[in-house]
Amino acid sequence: MEERQGVLPRRILGIDPGSRITGYGVIELCGTQPAYVASGCIRASDTALEQRLAQIYAGLAEVIGLHRPTEVSVERVFMAKNADSALKLGQARGAALVCVANHGLVIAEYAARQIKQAVTGKGGADKTQVQHMVTAILKLSATPQADAADALAIALTHAYAGQGFDTSATRTARRRTSGRWRL
Amino acid sequence: MEERQGVLPRRILGIDPGSRITGYGVIELCGTQPAYVASGCIRASDTALEQRLAQIYAGLAEVIGLHRPTEVSVERVFMAKNADSALKLGQARGAALVCVANHGLVIAEYAARQIKQAVTGKGGADKTQVQHMVTAILKLSATPQADAADALAIALTHAYAGQGFDTSATRTARRRTSGRWRL
Repeated sequence: MEERQGVLPRRILGIDPGSRITGYGVIELCGTQPAYVASGCIRASDTALEQRLAQIYAGLAEVIGLHRPTEVSVERVFMAKNADSALKLGQARGAALVCVANHGLVIAEYAARQIKQAVTGKGGADKTQVQHMVTAILKLSATPQADAADALAIALTHAYAGQGFDTSATRTARRRTSGRWRL
Repeated sequence: MEERQGVLPRRILGIDPGSRITGYGVIELCGTQPAYVASGCIRASDTALEQRLAQIYAGLAEVIGLHRPTEVSVERVFMAKNADSALKLGQARGAALVCVANHGLVIAEYAARQIKQAVTGKGGADKTQVQHMVTAILKLSATPQADAADALAIALTHAYAGQGFDTSATRTARRRTSGRWRL
């Protein structure tokens, strides 16, 4: 893995906010190759709303403090299922995004289709396909939990959207994968 | 105004979160009488989403630091108009509530009808009626802006919901008011 002198490696934190589970995934770009750093889930316990939001904030603050991302990306919400779930998702998103902003980081947003397209080559891919491709691209020994995999996919999408980034890792990984959704 | 020795006066911060304007109002309970402390609006500028959420967070953090509330109340959202506005409101709410929680304060929620009922005696009261009654109850020399008035109404509702609180201030103010919505 090459590293140019004086150039800090890009570290991308992808976040998949949710009222119960917030997935996060951190990747680093070594040259044009994305390398896995960390991923996981922040689970909000069954407590008062503001305490659950504080858990999301504190969890992400810990992830940011530990892994020091230079960039952050999140899924853009086009249309939520209904007003009630949109409000819940919005509150979790608000707590997550304000944590990122309070750490001086800017956020790039990508549509769900764009994320699926970037990682699997198919805008209509399902969660299992995303999990499978993320595992292949980042050469993970185990499949990450669905929300953590989504977060890693969001981070990878941002990496691919960066100028001059070579998506060959995805293409190679895609060739390696098999099954009905092979592209 | 009586003050019992060793008992800190209750200071209630009411918040009316919004994606563009977040109203806030602080009242203090001197015995059974609510007294006006401060109110205003936090306006989010036309910038990136996470920056706007950070402005709400920073604005509220300033209000909390300055006025040191002991309790916080907010309007409960039952059903937003549509999924898009629910998401926007949710994000603003998330940023506001997480700021409150990060300052170690708990939040009480009240339904819109409950707030209107507590302040005007009528669950279906409109914004102007709420503004008018808040001005009368707190003996303000000028009518606060609509979002600030809503926030003061939310704070007053929490005060009235407190055990043993005398709502005579509202009743007296109601008697003083005139016009079509007099109760």
